[in-house]
Amino acid sequence: MSDHGSQEVENTHERVLDAHLDRYAQRTAGMTASEVRALFAVANRPEVVSLAGGMPNLAALPLDSLADEISRLIVEEGQQALQYGSAHGVPRLREQICEVMQLEGISAHADDVMVTVGSQMALDMVTRIFCDPGDVVLAEGPSYVGALGSFSAYQAEVVHVAMDDEGLNPDGLREAISKVRSAGKNIKFLYTIPNFHNPAGITLAVHRRAEILEICRHHGILVLEDNPYGLLGFDGQTYPALRSQDPDNVVYLGSFSKVFASGLRVGWVLAPHAVREKLVLAAESATLCPPTLNQMIVSRYLETHDWKGQIKTYQEQYRQRRDAMLGALEQHMPPGCDWTRPDGGFMVWMTAPEGVDTKAMLPRAVTQRVAYASGTGFYADGLGSRQMRLSFCYPTPERIQEGVRRLANTITDELDLVRTFGSVPQRPVSGPDAPSVDTA
Amino acid sequence: MSDHGSQEVENTHERVLDAHLDRYAQRTAGMTASEVRALFAVANRPEVVSLAGGMPNLAALPLDSLADEISRLIVEEGQQALQYGSAHGVPRLREQICEVMQLEGISAHADDVMVTVGSQMALDMVTRIFCDPGDVVLAEGPSYVGALGSFSAYQAEVVHVAMDDEGLNPDGLREAISKVRSAGKNIKFLYTIPNFHNPAGITLAVHRRAEILEICRHHGILVLEDNPYGLLGFDGQTYPALRSQDPDNVVYLGSFSKVFASGLRVGWVLAPHAVREKLVLAAESATLCPPTLNQMIVSRYLETHDWKGQIKTYQEQYRQRRDAMLGALEQHMPPGCDWTRPDGGFMVWMTAPEGVDTKAMLPRAVTQRVAYASGTGFYADGLGSRQMRLSFCYPTPERIQEGVRRLANTITDELDLVRTFGSVPQRPVSGPDAPSVDTA
Repeated sequence: MSDHGSQEVENTHERVLDAHLDRYAQRTAGMTASEVRALFAVANRPEVVSLAGGMPNLAALPLDSLADEISRLIVEEGQQALQYGSAHGVPRLREQICEVMQLEGISAHADDVMVTVGSQMALDMVTRIFCDPGDVVLAEGPSYVGALGSFSAYQAEVVHVAMDDEGLNPDGLREAISKVRSAGKNIKFLYTIPNFHNPAGITLAVHRRAEILEICRHHGILVLEDNPYGLLGFDGQTYPALRSQDPDNVVYLGSFSKVFASGLRVGWVLAPHAVREKLVLAAESATLCPPTLNQMIVSRYLETHDWKGQIKTYQEQYRQRRDAMLGALEQHMPPGCDWTRPDGGFMVWMTAPEGVDTKAMLPRAVTQRVAYASGTGFYADGLGSRQMRLSFCYPTPERIQEGVRRLANTITDELDLVRTFGSVPQRPVSGPDAPSVDTA
Repeated sequence: MSDHGSQEVENTHERVLDAHLDRYAQRTAGMTASEVRALFAVANRPEVVSLAGGMPNLAALPLDSLADEISRLIVEEGQQALQYGSAHGVPRLREQICEVMQLEGISAHADDVMVTVGSQMALDMVTRIFCDPGDVVLAEGPSYVGALGSFSAYQAEVVHVAMDDEGLNPDGLREAISKVRSAGKNIKFLYTIPNFHNPAGITLAVHRRAEILEICRHHGILVLEDNPYGLLGFDGQTYPALRSQDPDNVVYLGSFSKVFASGLRVGWVLAPHAVREKLVLAAESATLCPPTLNQMIVSRYLETHDWKGQIKTYQEQYRQRRDAMLGALEQHMPPGCDWTRPDGGFMVWMTAPEGVDTKAMLPRAVTQRVAYASGTGFYADGLGSRQMRLSFCYPTPERIQEGVRRLANTITDELDLVRTFGSVPQRPVSGPDAPSVDTA
């Protein structure tokens, strides 16, 4: 049977499975299940060390006192907590969010904050109000996979800007702007994660921040600053938010997912007033309002708990895990591997030696009972085949060390194959539906 | 100053207020704040009886035992409840949702259910995967204002189908289909609220349901069935869901907002398998996942509380309020007013006598200390100027009676003005930002 014939059979097959195939919107063409989903059903088995996910480790949360506080909330303010609220968000929480943002130098008014269902929803809403199909979003390469998903859902085109050890490269940014504009395309914003980048594990050097802002302002490009990890510097250090230096041209995204609890889905966006107004209108049609209960839980938590102490606990916990990972990488990885050394956040970004394809290698890694996120998912343009993201946020230090050891063996085996065959035999990955490759 | 000059001044003014004006996506053109927002800041004052909102009355909720249950949940399963979950939703809750849907004749598999942040998010996701700009959505006239907002956010065009006392009119539906198709436009789905319609207060006659489904199937049009009120029939009656009669061509939306608690924002969508897969991919880019805590609260509530008894309590409560409203309308309204007589749900739809413009009358009603939702907001095409939605869900029966009395006086005064001047002098409505005209 010719390739063409086999393609036809496949289409017919898909059509039989989905009677609605001709009805979908064009944007669904970009919505495809991750190729490695099937694999992650396997990767989630307890015997596999997963360095793939982005789940925070919540073991340190004071569940008993949280339970008491939430119980009091329901008894005392249940009629409000269980009722609809506004799309803008609970006023008291928006004030508290301004206090949280002050820790990174941001001075803001509560009216310019909108609460969202995690900062993922903020990403979605910002893209919704700014991006027409074909518009360009500039983003670091690599970039957060969830943001790439939002941009793709609105048919925006992502153009990556190179990073180096000091983060987003200003010259790379100028070059990208000029290239995109000469192609006659419309740049809507620069999406950037300045602190403890996901997945790169790099922080934008402080001395570059004003320059990046100046370039964007000069070229009339809005900055979308995503900062979920900013308070998780391992030495308690913080860096000045881009928003603190240019309030009129930066839309800022924050989240309680990493500094409190991800399952509440409470994030926020801080935007210039007129933009915030549009965001609230967009949010009304998206969810009516974020859950009132969750907002009031976060508000009470900030009022009654030592939330700064809790963040210190998280910093310490993630620092230990980062140390475990860097130590193990140093000890076990074969020559030719290179990785970033984050001073905060959740992730290390590793580059494997020439000849290794991290996506193709993943099934073999899972066979060796270790999982990671392969690099191509973090690029919109197919780059990243030699890269992988290693998360140290969730497993214990001992599990991290064991996982890295297994991964090193996998890579060593892979390199043997490369040396023997010149390349590594590949097999396709497919299978039933499974949890997402990447949460957060 | 000429009109043209004044328009220019206004644009310049807007540009000064919003430096980002040239950057927004085209879809934001349809996102405008309700003209009556400013008014609703006033309408929310305690001395005003609001018949405008769609907030459920939660007074009957057992807050103490809910507080205990939620406290237990945090202590026993806090690590899971406060952690990320899948975009698909908590498996146990999806099974329970299937049991809830059985009450309306639906037989479904938990895998085909996706949990959403209220059914508003389900509306948003369904529109996202089906509608390209310019696609047509058929909907009852009037229709749910939040759905119109979602359709507009994706630049879909709404074509209304006439209703009568038995709901959506099959001949009207055939006519609309033929008209839209002759205009060369692409119909993506029929959006319908068959039970206790918001805002119309009408239920689709059972004998019409098969016919409506047959028409849609014949013409290859998907049905989007929105059923937030289905279990709130005042005599405990239920009607067979459209989904129960045509599983392959109906996407079904449900919600716990009206039968449990709206502030949790837990709704769901039930869809044919391939559609559900696309919905999960869309939801991942929208919110990553719905809040795990809220899903587990609903799941525990269904397991440990007499939720069917609670629904009976709600039915009784809303029946009393409906009775109060219908009695007061009968007693106070001047001749020429006409209204629907709902046997379930939250709303009465009233038509005022010739000459009354309900949007223009609203400021005068608020002066008389009563508020309602004027009819034009429930149409995409400017109809509804003589109509208004009167919600009986939230105020007490006494307040409802008082509100209707005030409204009757307002209309009577309005008719006096019409008789004296031939029409009613109008003034523009504007002012600062205020809560949304309509929650739910």
